[in-house]
Amino acid sequence: MVVSEEQPLPVEGDAAASKKAAKKAAKAAEKQQKKAEHKAASGAPQGEGDAPEADVSAGRYGVLKLIQSTGENRDRVYTDVKDLSVELNEQNVWVRARLQTSRAKGKQCFAVLRQSSSTVQLLVSVSDERAVSKQMVKFTGNITKESIVDVYATVVKTQAPVESCTVSAVELVATQVWLVSAARAQLPLQVEDAARPEKNDDPEALRIRVNQDTRLDNRVLDLRTPANQAIFRLEAGVCRLFRDILTKRGFVEIHTPKIIPAASEGGANVFTVSYFKSSAYLAQSPQLYKQMAIAADFDKVFTVGAVFRAEDSNTHRHLTEFVGLDLEMSFKHHYHEVLDTIAATLTDMFRGLRDQFASEIATVGQQYRVEPFKFLDPPLRLEFPQAIQMLKEAGVTVGEEDDLSTPDEKLLGRLVRAKYDTDFYILDKYPLAVRPFYTMPDPNNPKVSNSYDMFMRGEEILSGAQRIHDPEFLTQRALHHGIDISKIAAYIESFRLGCPPHAGGGIGMERVVMLYLGLDNIRKTSMFPRDPKRVSP
Amino acid sequence: MVVSEEQPLPVEGDAAASKKAAKKAAKAAEKQQKKAEHKAASGAPQGEGDAPEADVSAGRYGVLKLIQSTGENRDRVYTDVKDLSVELNEQNVWVRARLQTSRAKGKQCFAVLRQSSSTVQLLVSVSDERAVSKQMVKFTGNITKESIVDVYATVVKTQAPVESCTVSAVELVATQVWLVSAARAQLPLQVEDAARPEKNDDPEALRIRVNQDTRLDNRVLDLRTPANQAIFRLEAGVCRLFRDILTKRGFVEIHTPKIIPAASEGGANVFTVSYFKSSAYLAQSPQLYKQMAIAADFDKVFTVGAVFRAEDSNTHRHLTEFVGLDLEMSFKHHYHEVLDTIAATLTDMFRGLRDQFASEIATVGQQYRVEPFKFLDPPLRLEFPQAIQMLKEAGVTVGEEDDLSTPDEKLLGRLVRAKYDTDFYILDKYPLAVRPFYTMPDPNNPKVSNSYDMFMRGEEILSGAQRIHDPEFLTQRALHHGIDISKIAAYIESFRLGCPPHAGGGIGMERVVMLYLGLDNIRKTSMFPRDPKRVSP
Repeated sequence: MVVSEEQPLPVEGDAAASKKAAKKAAKAAEKQQKKAEHKAASGAPQGEGDAPEADVSAGRYGVLKLIQSTGENRDRVYTDVKDLSVELNEQNVWVRARLQTSRAKGKQCFAVLRQSSSTVQLLVSVSDERAVSKQMVKFTGNITKESIVDVYATVVKTQAPVESCTVSAVELVATQVWLVSAARAQLPLQVEDAARPEKNDDPEALRIRVNQDTRLDNRVLDLRTPANQAIFRLEAGVCRLFRDILTKRGFVEIHTPKIIPAASEGGANVFTVSYFKSSAYLAQSPQLYKQMAIAADFDKVFTVGAVFRAEDSNTHRHLTEFVGLDLEMSFKHHYHEVLDTIAATLTDMFRGLRDQFASEIATVGQQYRVEPFKFLDPPLRLEFPQAIQMLKEAGVTVGEEDDLSTPDEKLLGRLVRAKYDTDFYILDKYPLAVRPFYTMPDPNNPKVSNSYDMFMRGEEILSGAQRIHDPEFLTQRALHHGIDISKIAAYIESFRLGCPPHAGGGIGMERVVMLYLGLDNIRKTSMFPRDPKRVSP
Repeated sequence: MVVSEEQPLPVEGDAAASKKAAKKAAKAAEKQQKKAEHKAASGAPQGEGDAPEADVSAGRYGVLKLIQSTGENRDRVYTDVKDLSVELNEQNVWVRARLQTSRAKGKQCFAVLRQSSSTVQLLVSVSDERAVSKQMVKFTGNITKESIVDVYATVVKTQAPVESCTVSAVELVATQVWLVSAARAQLPLQVEDAARPEKNDDPEALRIRVNQDTRLDNRVLDLRTPANQAIFRLEAGVCRLFRDILTKRGFVEIHTPKIIPAASEGGANVFTVSYFKSSAYLAQSPQLYKQMAIAADFDKVFTVGAVFRAEDSNTHRHLTEFVGLDLEMSFKHHYHEVLDTIAATLTDMFRGLRDQFASEIATVGQQYRVEPFKFLDPPLRLEFPQAIQMLKEAGVTVGEEDDLSTPDEKLLGRLVRAKYDTDFYILDKYPLAVRPFYTMPDPNNPKVSNSYDMFMRGEEILSGAQRIHDPEFLTQRALHHGIDISKIAAYIESFRLGCPPHAGGGIGMERVVMLYLGLDNIRKTSMFPRDPKRVSP
């Protein structure tokens, strides 16, 4: 149904609406409907146009005039669905919510109203006392799923709990029902299908599962599932905790440019941007800028922002654009001052998520099989040779100067979990050979470096290191890596202005959320994911 | 002076260092110096290589071995410069700081140590009691400005306040001086020049003023000025306050993609990105995604992130990349529910800045002429015709369907300031004709819209409106604007899934900081600014 400003459709709350006005409204509605070329005919609300003269509910239901800020109803108080409880028994409330489902049967219509993750049952029943007509019941039954409605209703304690709703102790018995914003009749996916538990392995449930591309193509609908409402609220919590914990520790938030003059980490995997008559690149990390902020006396800095990788990796854990939680910190004598700070920050974050987002975690758990995330305080720190040894004992041989493969990392995660009962740990002292040129070598062993990765459920979420802060040594290491010094001259130059020793790391926000919740795909934790095959919506 | 891991330079704190070791160190230092091809010869520290046998300070000064995290000195406690006070009188402390200036005269060297915005005087004086030799004094005098040093010193109450330092009641009398990281002798700009008060109009001060491009080309040095240290700490505060205030009001933080499939606000002024075998664009605003989040039941959302404008505008207030503080909120009946929320958020933010950043504001005021920022609570809200009238009374004619020019806005800012004594106000009810197609028209006057701008010191910092949430009406307005409907089909489609009425706005972070502090150029409030002519550093 189409509503536009020119249409004098039935106006909500107009108790004095005469029959004449109702007639006029009916005509307008008819005209409107023709104009819409029967587009919404299959299940659209019909307004009170059917037989208004005989309708005791006239002026108590219909299509609400487009809300254009006229000043009407500004004082009306609405109640949130989550706040409906027996304490409000017998009281009348206004509720604005989505109509999730409705089922009209003769003189009654049962519907479920949803607001974010909360649901409540609505009953619209023919009643002289409430002046609810059969036309009004029919109108409600015809409202398309996912439409937004305003309902004036009495809160009524239910005899038995309504198992299908999050608000189970009460239901709403309507005296007014107004359509605020209509959803189209044919939805590309059903929210209830998208919300179906994945842990349910019966073939019927599998058959109606909504596949990932359908979800992402219609992300607005998909995001309405309780699990998604919870995931992105928890994701906001990850960012808030990260920032708050670091701010309390004296870190300063900075903002680093995304458009950069040269590829920051070698030339590969970088997106090119047309920049007026020239070209520029999208930053693959804020690394250089974080380090410049350290050289500029900001001492401890963090930044939260978009990071771009032009990698053609179509895996469960790669995105071409993601949110980086980056930090960099000067230290006095040992990079473990920084490593310990990062470790404590993450531990505090895990604790904050557990304590502040228990209900969101439970909601996600209703759709996905989630084992609670286990962590130790202080966290476990292993050195690379210990990891090699654990893998060796499990029958996997890794050279002492090799990097770990993704399967090695996953196996190691399982071994660590079994031995130490933690889903989070730090792997310190990586082989120098597998780290970038700017990584500080270990002072005692030239094959080892002052670098670390951190893991959640066996997948890497952070990579970091002490950086070389001496320009000559940095040059030497870059040459050793076969890097064209002229291309990183500005980077090296920033260390000729006096720079304290420093270390840091970069965390992938979406990975943290995915792995904290034990989800299987990073696209579940990016609101509008970007990968080599997807740039929309 | 070049320090690298292979050089056995004098090791700090090694009290038992034998003469033999010292000799060896001296040789190494000599070799090292040759290797550096006298690059740093003009003022570089010499280490204790000169005549170590006769040096009573041997082992108490020199070039510190590259800090590579050996585990040495991990337990050493350092004191921050800002915490040096008479309470520490006669106590010995370790301080790591920059050597801002030094002046050796015979048996004494006076230096200023700086840490962020705090400074303290350092005295290195030949003394048998302290075992300070003339070589050590000379070494200190030769340390290049902006180098980082470790100093072990006694806190000594000064007879008269040290006017040139922020810590004026005490000075440091050194017993050890170690060079941690050397700055090169020839700096592209002097931090003390970059920090010179701009309000000082005498010709001498003007002559040695550092111009903006020199500052930005050497941003690492420029950022070390007290004013810049303060500006970017306050900027972090703007973001923190924005987020905290909105989070308390029930907003959810979201992250929107920067890489988008089509230009979000018309085709002009958008950067193109090579995206694998195709092309994409950089988002000019998170508008569509914020609205989708509203349609997806997140109710109230905000996002802080990079925004890109390919405008060839070389003005004091345009950047090609800036940080957007964006919010969007569903409302029940009137967009002023949202406008009032934004207004209260900004007022709370101004109050927070005033109360929490008084010292930063004062520091900025030492370099720049800054009038305190005035605001009312609740803020002033004018309607567009009132502004037209005020301008008319001041002799400027603006048509009722015209937009305000930048000079009009500035004049209006002065008029508002004079009449209402506020640097912040809201201008509501813009002409429909000057706003984007998705702006909701006023319900009573088809020439007017439900839109608003907000101003600080006469410059726009926020633009916002009620958006049209009805797909047919949106289509009609887009057609009216001559927009190719096929290109915005996905945008329109998102309103066919049921969408509550909503409004929002976007704030330019750098503008807020610039105008709050009364600075004259947005490049002063972007850490690494991007404009049509600058993509580096």
